[in-house]
Amino acid sequence: MTGDDTPTDDIMCATYRALCRHGYANLTMQDIADEWSKSKAALHYHYDTKRGLLLAFLDHLFDAYTDRVADDGDGPPRERLQTLLADALDPPRTDASQELRTALFEVKAQAPHDDGFRERLARFDRYLHDEVRGIVTEGVETGAFRADIDPETTATLLVTLVNGARSRRVALDDEAGVPDAVRAFVDDHLVEADE
Amino acid sequence: MTGDDTPTDDIMCATYRALCRHGYANLTMQDIADEWSKSKAALHYHYDTKRGLLLAFLDHLFDAYTDRVADDGDGPPRERLQTLLADALDPPRTDASQELRTALFEVKAQAPHDDGFRERLARFDRYLHDEVRGIVTEGVETGAFRADIDPETTATLLVTLVNGARSRRVALDDEAGVPDAVRAFVDDHLVEADE
Repeated sequence: MTGDDTPTDDIMCATYRALCRHGYANLTMQDIADEWSKSKAALHYHYDTKRGLLLAFLDHLFDAYTDRVADDGDGPPRERLQTLLADALDPPRTDASQELRTALFEVKAQAPHDDGFRERLARFDRYLHDEVRGIVTEGVETGAFRADIDPETTATLLVTLVNGARSRRVALDDEAGVPDAVRAFVDDHLVEADE
Repeated sequence: MTGDDTPTDDIMCATYRALCRHGYANLTMQDIADEWSKSKAALHYHYDTKRGLLLAFLDHLFDAYTDRVADDGDGPPRERLQTLLADALDPPRTDASQELRTALFEVKAQAPHDDGFRERLARFDRYLHDEVRGIVTEGVETGAFRADIDPETTATLLVTLVNGARSRRVALDDEAGVPDAVRAFVDDHLVEADE
């Protein structure tokens, strides 16, 4: 998330910093304008409302997510799945600090009250689901994974695990061995036991 | 959650109704007093602060949770694990309406900012973890589950799945086949394949 010349990118960076600093509940357009080093009026010229700005910010995060968490189709399915899940579970610090994760969890808690937020958040899960299903399907077809694995069910399990890991990390500050357990799931359950 | 003679139980029922009606973010002591049909002063006689009352409410929910989600030790481990997970995933409507789940998710979003809330929420996970680990351990020892299953890792996976399922249900209003996937996980992965 580096600023470039367009005001929109600069505003996204300012929103990121403002969310990290103030959290979501108390965030104001003034906080974001302050981080942008411009006036609130200038900010309102680009975004009418805080809600509109935050929806645009979720779109911006989604683009970053699909850049970071993507199957490059290169290499054995097992390793690709492990890499994909590690990327989804453990974003680099520069991309999502604990503060941002906490703020996004607060956004998530708002989702039941707002279709726009819910729809944006659901895109992250749908995207990850499709990436996982693609790799698992290929793994089953090529014999890398057990023949009786159902790609759709496995994708649902893994996406739900990633959701649960995020929830436990943010709300409980407790990873509790989750990344290791996910790795073990792939290695022990998807891969055929040695004969 | 039925009222009986003690004021504390009545206040817990009032808190339940107030949370369902108003959500967490805007909840006031007055809202809870109104549901209790007594004055705010009377409520403050029992609980100094809204935070103290909500912490007591989480303790009350934890008691209800451990009553509802409990391994009775009776029957084959596979069926007991399925029942335990179904109870954890799908509470009866009378116990936790969608409104209450949403309000509790908002409480969860507050947890990073408050050690008291975090500690209370972590108890639910620790309890479920121990129940799952107990059944899986017995299942491995008695041959109901595969000998190479690690009870600790399996408990971590299943508790994280339950967290993820709650998060998806509340934030995305999307169960997306999660209960079926969890059932399949137990049947396909924990149980030895037929020889």
